[in-house]
Amino acid sequence: MPDSSNMKAFVLHGAKDVRLEEVPKPKPGPNEVLVKVRAAGICGSDLHYHSHGRCGDFVPTRPFILGHEFAGEIVAVGDADQQSLLGTRVAVDPSRPCGQCRICRQGRYNLCPEMVYFGSASVTPPSDGCFAEYVVAPAKNCVPIPDAFEFAWGALLEPLSVATHAIMRSGGVSGKSVLITGGGTIGQMILIVAKAFGASQVVVTDVKPFSRTFAEEQGASAAIDPTAEDFREQMDALAPDGFEVAFEASGVPAALNQAFEFTAKGGTVVQVGTLENGISIPANTLLTREIKYLGSWRFANVFDRVMALISSGAIDVRA
Amino acid sequence: MPDSSNMKAFVLHGAKDVRLEEVPKPKPGPNEVLVKVRAAGICGSDLHYHSHGRCGDFVPTRPFILGHEFAGEIVAVGDADQQSLLGTRVAVDPSRPCGQCRICRQGRYNLCPEMVYFGSASVTPPSDGCFAEYVVAPAKNCVPIPDAFEFAWGALLEPLSVATHAIMRSGGVSGKSVLITGGGTIGQMILIVAKAFGASQVVVTDVKPFSRTFAEEQGASAAIDPTAEDFREQMDALAPDGFEVAFEASGVPAALNQAFEFTAKGGTVVQVGTLENGISIPANTLLTREIKYLGSWRFANVFDRVMALISSGAIDVRA
Amino acid sequence: MPDSSNMKAFVLHGAKDVRLEEVPKPKPGPNEVLVKVRAAGICGSDLHYHSHGRCGDFVPTRPFILGHEFAGEIVAVGDADQQSLLGTRVAVDPSRPCGQCRICRQGRYNLCPEMVYFGSASVTPPSDGCFAEYVVAPAKNCVPIPDAFEFAWGALLEPLSVATHAIMRSGGVSGKSVLITGGGTIGQMILIVAKAFGASQVVVTDVKPFSRTFAEEQGASAAIDPTAEDFREQMDALAPDGFEVAFEASGVPAALNQAFEFTAKGGTVVQVGTLENGISIPANTLLTREIKYLGSWRFANVFDRVMALISSGAIDVRA
Amino acid sequence: MPDSSNMKAFVLHGAKDVRLEEVPKPKPGPNEVLVKVRAAGICGSDLHYHSHGRCGDFVPTRPFILGHEFAGEIVAVGDADQQSLLGTRVAVDPSRPCGQCRICRQGRYNLCPEMVYFGSASVTPPSDGCFAEYVVAPAKNCVPIPDAFEFAWGALLEPLSVATHAIMRSGGVSGKSVLITGGGTIGQMILIVAKAFGASQVVVTDVKPFSRTFAEEQGASAAIDPTAEDFREQMDALAPDGFEVAFEASGVPAALNQAFEFTAKGGTVVQVGTLENGISIPANTLLTREIKYLGSWRFANVFDRVMALISSGAIDVRA
Repeated sequence: MPDSSNMKAFVLHGAKDVRLEEVPKPKPGPNEVLVKVRAAGICGSDLHYHSHGRCGDFVPTRPFILGHEFAGEIVAVGDADQQSLLGTRVAVDPSRPCGQCRICRQGRYNLCPEMVYFGSASVTPPSDGCFAEYVVAPAKNCVPIPDAFEFAWGALLEPLSVATHAIMRSGGVSGKSVLITGGGTIGQMILIVAKAFGASQVVVTDVKPFSRTFAEEQGASAAIDPTAEDFREQMDALAPDGFEVAFEASGVPAALNQAFEFTAKGGTVVQVGTLENGISIPANTLLTREIKYLGSWRFANVFDRVMALISSGAIDVRA
Repeated sequence: MPDSSNMKAFVLHGAKDVRLEEVPKPKPGPNEVLVKVRAAGICGSDLHYHSHGRCGDFVPTRPFILGHEFAGEIVAVGDADQQSLLGTRVAVDPSRPCGQCRICRQGRYNLCPEMVYFGSASVTPPSDGCFAEYVVAPAKNCVPIPDAFEFAWGALLEPLSVATHAIMRSGGVSGKSVLITGGGTIGQMILIVAKAFGASQVVVTDVKPFSRTFAEEQGASAAIDPTAEDFREQMDALAPDGFEVAFEASGVPAALNQAFEFTAKGGTVVQVGTLENGISIPANTLLTREIKYLGSWRFANVFDRVMALISSGAIDVRA
Repeated sequence: MPDSSNMKAFVLHGAKDVRLEEVPKPKPGPNEVLVKVRAAGICGSDLHYHSHGRCGDFVPTRPFILGHEFAGEIVAVGDADQQSLLGTRVAVDPSRPCGQCRICRQGRYNLCPEMVYFGSASVTPPSDGCFAEYVVAPAKNCVPIPDAFEFAWGALLEPLSVATHAIMRSGGVSGKSVLITGGGTIGQMILIVAKAFGASQVVVTDVKPFSRTFAEEQGASAAIDPTAEDFREQMDALAPDGFEVAFEASGVPAALNQAFEFTAKGGTVVQVGTLENGISIPANTLLTREIKYLGSWRFANVFDRVMALISSGAIDVRA
Repeated sequence: MPDSSNMKAFVLHGAKDVRLEEVPKPKPGPNEVLVKVRAAGICGSDLHYHSHGRCGDFVPTRPFILGHEFAGEIVAVGDADQQSLLGTRVAVDPSRPCGQCRICRQGRYNLCPEMVYFGSASVTPPSDGCFAEYVVAPAKNCVPIPDAFEFAWGALLEPLSVATHAIMRSGGVSGKSVLITGGGTIGQMILIVAKAFGASQVVVTDVKPFSRTFAEEQGASAAIDPTAEDFREQMDALAPDGFEVAFEASGVPAALNQAFEFTAKGGTVVQVGTLENGISIPANTLLTREIKYLGSWRFANVFDRVMALISSGAIDVRA
C-alpha cells in the first residue's frame, strides 16, 4: 500500500543520472496550492541538466526534480478561504521572483537575482520542478485553462511566454516585417505569436527541411534554407529594404550574423537563442544602420496574457 | 466632342452647394503621376464640408474638389523613367507634408503645419481632392493594390490607416484588453485592426443595435449598449480590472467619460473621435490611476503597412 | 520615569483632533529596522487629514499617526546580521507595495492596490506614520544620507521623488522647453529637478508674487503671473511654438487649461496637482495637436536616484 | 584684384593631396543663404579623408571641399523676404536629408540614404563642405548664435549634437549611472552632456593620462585607467551593480567588451565610436542580463536643442 504522504518524482543526481524515486509529497503553505501534474513539457535546459548534470553556470548543490513547463489540477489549498480553487485545471507560471529588489520593482522580475524557478539550479539550493506527481505553487501563479483545452496545451504556455516576451522586448511586430533565424521550438513559437500579433511578413530560416516545412504550415510567408546557393537573392527578393525585426532563435553564430545582414536601417535584432560569450558580430553594420540588438531572457508579465490569447482564439495552438 | 484637357469633378462652392463641373485636367510634374480615379470613399469630414461649407477651423478661400479616400490606375507619369508605373492599380496616401519642418523631422508629419491633404481646406488655398475623374499625386504616395483586390478595397486604406495610427499611438494592443466606445466607421476599423494585432479581448459600446451587430460579426468579444440598465454590471463582468486600452471613437462626451471609468490602472485612453473644447473629464481618475489620455490625428507611417497587412491576409477587409 | 517600551506620537482621532499621546514603541521584525525620527516634513495631505479627518476617499477606521516625509537614525535592527546598520543616518522611502500583484510586477508599484504608505488611510486599517519618536521600516526602504547633509534634507526626498517621478512619466525633459503651472512646493521641486535634468527652458506660472520670486531664485527662465493683462503675449514671446512638456502642479482647473493652451503640437501635459473629477478640458486641442495628457501619482523607482543626485551635487537642495 | 565671384577653398584631390584653390563662390537658391565661414572644426573623418582620400565606404568621384563643423555670418540670401537674416551669426546643421523617404518620414533622417552632408562623399557626387570662405546652406539649417558666444563655440555644435543624439538614443541618462569608454573628443562631449542632463554618476575610462585628467576637470565622478592592475576592483567599487548606461566612444574592441562587463542587468550599451565588422562581443552576457546594445549614427532632431542648452547655460562649453 503506497504511503500517501509520498509521491513519485524524477530526481537528477548527476550527469545522465536521473532516478525515479519516492519522495515526500510537498504541502501548500499560505497563498499556495498543491497541483497534481497532468501534463509536462521537456525543455532544452532539462536535457542540458540531464546530459551535463548542470546548465551553464547553474550547478545544483543537491539532487533535485527537473521540469518547469506544466499544467495540472489543484487538489489541495494552503488557505481555508481558497477552497473554491479545488478542482481547477491550471497552467503554472514557473516564475517566483522576490518582488522587492530593485529590478523586480522596475517590472523586470525575470532578471531578479533571487528568482526561484521551478526545476532550476539558478538558486541555491536548487528548486524542485514538475517531473513529479505533485507540485506546490503560489496560487497567483496558477492560470485557469479554459474547458475547451486539454492539459497538454497548458504545458505550451511556458515556451509561448518566452516567445511573447521576446516580441514585447522588440517593441512589437504589428504591421512589421519579421525574420526568425532558427525554426526549432522557440522559433516556431515566435512565428505563431508574430502571426497572431499582425506581423505583415514572417520569414523563417533553418537548415533542416522539416523545420522549414513546419514553419510554412504555421503560416510563415517563406521558409528559407540559409545554405542554399541563392540564399542572399531569395532574402533580398523577400525584403528588399531588410526586415524591421529579426529574432535569433538558433543559437548559431552564423545565423546571428545573417540576422544583422538582413535587418533594415533602424531595425531591431533580438537574441533569444543561447549563445556563448566571444561571438563575432558586424559592429559597423550595427553602428551605421543604428540597429538595436537586445537580449530576451525567460519572460515577465506575459503568462496570463498568453492564456487569454489562447482562450480567445487569437493564438491557435491546436495545429 | 469632349475636351480631353478637361475632366468632370464635384466642386464645393459653399454649404450644400456642390456642383458637377468641367475643370482642367491636372498634369503630373516631376516625381508625380496622374491617377484615374476608380473608387472613392466619403468620409465624415466630406459631409461636414458639404453641410457647412467648412470643416471646423478649415474655411476654403475658393471653390475646391472634395474627397481624400481613393484608389485608381496610373495613366500618366511626370518623369520619363517612370514609364513602368503606367497601368499600375494603386491606393493613394492623401498626406503631402513639407518634410523639412521641425515636426516632420521628428517623424510626426501628420502634425505638419504645411500639410497638403487631398480635398482639404487645412491649407490656403484649399487642396483639390479625389471626387474627380483624375488626380495628380506624388509617385511615392501610390501603393500598389494586389491583383486579388478590387479598387474599392483601396479606398478603405485611408480609414484603416486612421485606425492603425490610433493603435500605434496607444503603444500597441497585442495581448491586451481593448474597449472601443463608438461603433461607427472608425470604431469598426479599430476593431478589425485590433483583432489583427492580437488584442486578447475587444469590447465595443454603441447605442445603435446595427453597430453592435456589425461589431459582433467583425469579431468583437462583446458589443454592449451603454444605455442598458445593467451596463455597468456587464462591463465589470467583461473586464473586472478594467480595460488596458480604450479608444474613444464616438465623439460623444458621455462615451469619453465611460472610457475613463472602465480603463484599468496604468491604462491608456485614445481620443480618435472629434470632440469640441470644453469637455468635462474625470481628472481625478486620470491622476490616481495614472491614465494616459492622448489624441490621435489622421495618421503617419502606416499607409503602406496597412496595404501589406491586407495583402498578407492579416487584415481581412472583404467582410 | 518614562516607560522605555512606549514613545510619544501625534495621533489623528478625527477632524482637527490630533493628540500628542504615549503609544507602544514598535519593534522591527525580520528585514526591518527601527528608525529614530530626526526630521519630518508636513505635506498637503497631512493638513487635509487634519482638517477633515480623512483625505478624499481615504477614511481611517481607527486613530493613527500621520506623516510620511522623514529622515532619522537606525537605532535597532530586526536581524542579527544587520548590526552594521546601527547608527546609519537615513531617509525613508514611505512606499511598501505588495510586490506580487499584476501592477507591481509591471514595475508600477505606486499603483499597487495593497500599497502600505506611511501615515495613510489608503489601506485598512490605516498605516502609522512618522510624526512619532520612532518608526519601523523595511531595511531596503532606508537610503543613507551622505555625511555632508543634515537630516532635514532627508525629509525633502519624498517631495523631490514626486517631482522626479512626474518628470520620468513625461518622457524626460532633457533639452526640452518646460512649463510648470503652479509654484507651490511640488511645482518648485519640479523646477529644481527639471533644471538638474537639463531642460533648455523652464517657465513657472503662479498668481502669488512670493512663488514667482522663489521660482526665479531657483533658476526659472521666467515666472509669469497668469492674471496679468499681457499674460498671453508674455507666454507667446517665451515659447512661440509652445512648450514641449507642461506640468500642472496647482490643482486649479484654469491652470490646467492654460497648460493645454501653451503646449506644443505633439507635446505632453502631466497632471501632478490634485483635481476633482468633472474638470473641463480642451479636448479638441488635445486631439488635433496629438497632446498626451497623463496622471502622475506618488512615485516609483526614484527614491534612491534622488538621493544619488543630491549626493553628487546634481540636485542642489541647500538653497 | 581678386575675382569677387570666386573664393578660396581647401579641395581634396586624393590621399594626402589637399590644395588651396580658387573656386567659384556658390550662390544661394530659394530658402537658402550664403554663410561666410568664421570658424570651422576638424573632425576625425576629415583626417581620414585626408590620409586615405576616402572614408570607409565613402569614395569621392571628384575633388571636393572637406569640413562639416562650422559657424559664420549670413552675408547673402536667396529670397527677397529673408533680408532680415543678413548679418546673423549662425551655426550650421550639416544635415540635408531628403525629407520624404520612408526613414525620413519616421523621424530618423540621420539614416536617410539620400542624405547630403557637408563635406562628405556619402552621396555621389560628393557634397562640398566648409573649409572655404563661403558655404551655401538651407536657411532652416542655420541656428543663431547668442551674442555672448564667439563663433568658435558654434563649431562645437556638431560634435555636441553627436553626443546628445547618443544620449537620446540610450533612453536618457537623467538620474542614472553612466560609463564612457574612451575620453577622446566624443567621449568628453558625452561626459559634458550627461552631466548637464543630470546623470547621477559619470565614469570615464581611457588609457591616456591627459584624457583622464581632462575628464576629471569636466566633472567626471572618476576617470579610470583600464590597464591598471586593480581596474576591475576600481570599477566594482564605483558601481557594485554595474552602470545603467554605457557609451563606447573609443572604437577599441576591448573597451566595448569592458562596457558590456560593467553594464548592469537591464542596462544599455551605446556604440558611438567607429568599429569594424567582425568584433567579438559577450553575447551570453547580453542575453542573460537583457542588455540593449545599439548604434548611434550622426544625429537627428538635436542641433537646435544643443544651441538652446548652450544659450541657457545648461551646457557650459567655455571650459
